Amino acid sequence: MAPRSNYRLPKIPEMTIRRLSVYTRCLIQLEEDGVKTVSSQELADRFSLNSAQVRKDLAYFGEFGVRGIGYYVSGLKAELQKILGLDREWPVVLVGFGNLGSALFNYKGFSRQGFRIATIVDDDPAKVGRDLDGVPIVATRDIARELKARGIQIAILAVPPEPAQAVTDQLVAAGIRAILNFAPARLRVGRDVRLKNVDLSIELETLSFYLAKGAR
Amino acid sequence: MAPRSNYRLPKIPEMTIRRLSVYTRCLIQLEEDGVKTVSSQELADRFSLNSAQVRKDLAYFGEFGVRGIGYYVSGLKAELQKILGLDREWPVVLVGFGNLGSALFNYKGFSRQGFRIATIVDDDPAKVGRDLDGVPIVATRDIARELKARGIQIAILAVPPEPAQAVTDQLVAAGIRAILNFAPARLRVGRDVRLKNVDLSIELETLSFYLAKGAR
Repeated sequence: MAPRSNYRLPKIPEMTIRRLSVYTRCLIQLEEDGVKTVSSQELADRFSLNSAQVRKDLAYFGEFGVRGIGYYVSGLKAELQKILGLDREWPVVLVGFGNLGSALFNYKGFSRQGFRIATIVDDDPAKVGRDLDGVPIVATRDIARELKARGIQIAILAVPPEPAQAVTDQLVAAGIRAILNFAPARLRVGRDVRLKNVDLSIELETLSFYLAKGAR
Repeated sequence: MAPRSNYRLPKIPEMTIRRLSVYTRCLIQLEEDGVKTVSSQELADRFSLNSAQVRKDLAYFGEFGVRGIGYYVSGLKAELQKILGLDREWPVVLVGFGNLGSALFNYKGFSRQGFRIATIVDDDPAKVGRDLDGVPIVATRDIARELKARGIQIAILAVPPEPAQAVTDQLVAAGIRAILNFAPARLRVGRDVRLKNVDLSIELETLSFYLAKGAR
């Protein structure tokens, strides 16, 4: 067996990963509807996907289809969840508990996919020390201790842009490995930390594109 | 001249539209840094893009490069903004003013790109009739009147999942043409309405994929 450090997956486009998330949602729905098997074409037709793209995306990870049958819905769903790391629970730290932080704390979609907000960080003295449904609110100075105690590797950053870099530096120093950033700020992190910026206005721009196109 | 109804653009992938938004942000930054011209390769190197993809995406819309020079930063930025419909202001209605609605109202990114929240809709009697920095909060029954009075075509939906479809039906009946949906609900709209669902957990899943991969 080759030593692990020599083993490399082909570079997988991030859009492929995003689409795996979408396929997983489609398969969960098919499973709920009692569908046992599905072809890439049926999957594409039902959920407005591209069947060639579906096959190409899945091919990065193995041979999932069975000739004459297609994909086994439950089996493929479980495989994709495993690939996406969704076969386990991820404790997450939510940093910043203003309006956005509160909204994200109450967002049902995270826990449904196995992401559990285990700690909230906010330096507001009126918030520190409180407990929300068992989730403690701690001050920034306690980040390192909390991450270690709870085995947290993922942070959701919902702070204003001004303190965002300083907070990020503290998270990284405390050993965080992935950050989902909602702050409208360009953050710098080392190469061993995954940073994903959420820019909500990009979503609106795809809409204005179509409206503007219609008006041309 | 061919009648307008016979004129069709090639079908442009939605990911191309998303990337145009990203390119626009890169060009704005280059402009701020005083850069006058840039090649697709330089653009790709600086912002971790794919230069072939940049050229392919732009080719849907015309010939923007100049041989031996590359792209004129300000000119290309202005062209892309026009294509994305960002050369004008879009009044937007924000529906739902709980934690998420409040966070979105205060989100700086929207107005920076020309999306101005012009009306807030919420049926909470404690909120209806109030005014936030000149933006009125109105009840659902007044949606049609408000959209017409303010020329609003785009809605941001930040309501809980239960009332989401009923509110959507009212928005569509009132003439809304595009909806950015944050409610974790599958909405049905007619073919002439653009619906864009924001699923925040997908972003987290691209992070867990990389963490899980590292652990394998």
